[in-house]
Amino acid sequence: MKKSEFSFIGDIATLFGTLPHHGFEPIGDDCTVVDMGADALVMTTDMLVEDVHFLRSASTAEEVGMKSLMVNISDVAAMGATPIATLLSLSLPESAQGEWSEAFMRGYYEACSKHGVALVGGDTTASRDRITINVVAIGRAPKANIKRRSAAKVDDIIAVTGKLGVSSKGLVDIMFGDLTTEAAEIHRRGNARVAEGAWLGTRSEVHAMMDISDGIASDIRHIMELSNVGAEIELNDIPTDYDIRYATTGGEDYELLLTVDPASFDTIATALAEATGTTLTAIGRITSSHELCWLQDGAPTDIDLRGFTHF
Amino acid sequence: MKKSEFSFIGDIATLFGTLPHHGFEPIGDDCTVVDMGADALVMTTDMLVEDVHFLRSASTAEEVGMKSLMVNISDVAAMGATPIATLLSLSLPESAQGEWSEAFMRGYYEACSKHGVALVGGDTTASRDRITINVVAIGRAPKANIKRRSAAKVDDIIAVTGKLGVSSKGLVDIMFGDLTTEAAEIHRRGNARVAEGAWLGTRSEVHAMMDISDGIASDIRHIMELSNVGAEIELNDIPTDYDIRYATTGGEDYELLLTVDPASFDTIATALAEATGTTLTAIGRITSSHELCWLQDGAPTDIDLRGFTHF
Repeated sequence: MKKSEFSFIGDIATLFGTLPHHGFEPIGDDCTVVDMGADALVMTTDMLVEDVHFLRSASTAEEVGMKSLMVNISDVAAMGATPIATLLSLSLPESAQGEWSEAFMRGYYEACSKHGVALVGGDTTASRDRITINVVAIGRAPKANIKRRSAAKVDDIIAVTGKLGVSSKGLVDIMFGDLTTEAAEIHRRGNARVAEGAWLGTRSEVHAMMDISDGIASDIRHIMELSNVGAEIELNDIPTDYDIRYATTGGEDYELLLTVDPASFDTIATALAEATGTTLTAIGRITSSHELCWLQDGAPTDIDLRGFTHF
Repeated sequence: MKKSEFSFIGDIATLFGTLPHHGFEPIGDDCTVVDMGADALVMTTDMLVEDVHFLRSASTAEEVGMKSLMVNISDVAAMGATPIATLLSLSLPESAQGEWSEAFMRGYYEACSKHGVALVGGDTTASRDRITINVVAIGRAPKANIKRRSAAKVDDIIAVTGKLGVSSKGLVDIMFGDLTTEAAEIHRRGNARVAEGAWLGTRSEVHAMMDISDGIASDIRHIMELSNVGAEIELNDIPTDYDIRYATTGGEDYELLLTVDPASFDTIATALAEATGTTLTAIGRITSSHELCWLQDGAPTDIDLRGFTHF
């Protein structure tokens, strides 16, 4: 689906934009938001397909279970909300009924248990030959905490949590048969900055936020588009242990990408590290140019970095 | 999965029952319920898999789109709530990208538009060879309107909306190549008693309610189990134009199955018909026996009726 995925989603958003929204925010952010009074609920959904998003030969069922939850609660965290509940749909070929599905549920349970998330509904059905998993994650936060992609301001510091490129390095390791590297293990289990997202939600100096699922080269463009701004990013400042291409265009890191009031960045970074142990690194600045500009040692570079595509 | 589906779901409910629920009701009803103050939100999810729930050769993409929404908002209606929003996940093989997916979205839109339901989130991804569709439907109702499977009382009248057996007769027609019978068309498009569910939600004389997805022979047992009661059903009273097996064990009718205070049944049936044009037919009575008893002309019959299984 590649590029056409975006036009398909755009067409859908236009078509359905005319229908009543009943208090839900329209498509565009990590999650939709619905007003509950003082609090808001946020909701997101992700589908994982065998042989597209995971291989039974490369991931254990427990790992797929964990990852299915993690990628979804990562979207909730990216809104500044705390994940509270999920709905899980599974379609299982005969070969995955029994042992595989039970191990999957153990992994899913482990991840739910770690983050205090409930399973409140779902569906199980047969399929002909491949596994499909759909997870809905629901989060809750005071309305004022909700962070949107549209909230970046010119001169904001662009920052990321943790280190980038680990998951895509892990995917490459797996493709070369190295299933047990540290990066491969992180790729298989997924990551979700649950505590960090909820903490950053409480800080009004944090403006736009999203999770990094396709690499910052692709993901920053969502913030640029919805906030109607540009961005410059210093390649030397991107926190990574791997090649810059993994760190900028590699998918599935599930770190948080956010923009912060420049006067408050140091305070926020220090306080986040104290509260959660997680580093926040400044990698660039929001501009008024509407362009994405990559810098190397402060000077523009014409390096060609594109976002990761899953298929 | 057949019988084992129930034990798998039971195991999941037990495993996850120990986690905090954050105000959500646990698994067991048509929808989960979350408290929003005066109102409640209800949520449900269903997954439709190509060659299990639909055939591309027997249903148009528009029909699959319509049915995907209908089966989900039927669960919302069964709680006495009004469907307001949905999340849609699609995994599409290359052969369904483009024309098929666009026609699917037109059908989905038509059904959403008919019932004033928004599309507020979703996911699209590739798949290797078959289509999988996951829909989440969200409804809203005053808390007092929510109807649960656990609320049936001894001596309640058991009643159903509309006529039963149409959809399964349509499925059999399709299996024999008769794609254009009235029953086949109803099977392909699905049904949802949206106005009826919301109206019945407002009536305190209506106790338990659910939608009929697997046939009353199977579905009444969910009410019996959760309400800790029995039931007797008079076969002659079941409203149908087809063989009694379609009407009792045929799947996907998506009519409503409810229990009503016996003193109020006539009033409710008359008022429902006036409000929505839909008939409500008394087919039996809730008993204290914990058994399901089929009657023919008032006398017990040992007819062997089992619920429909989708696979």
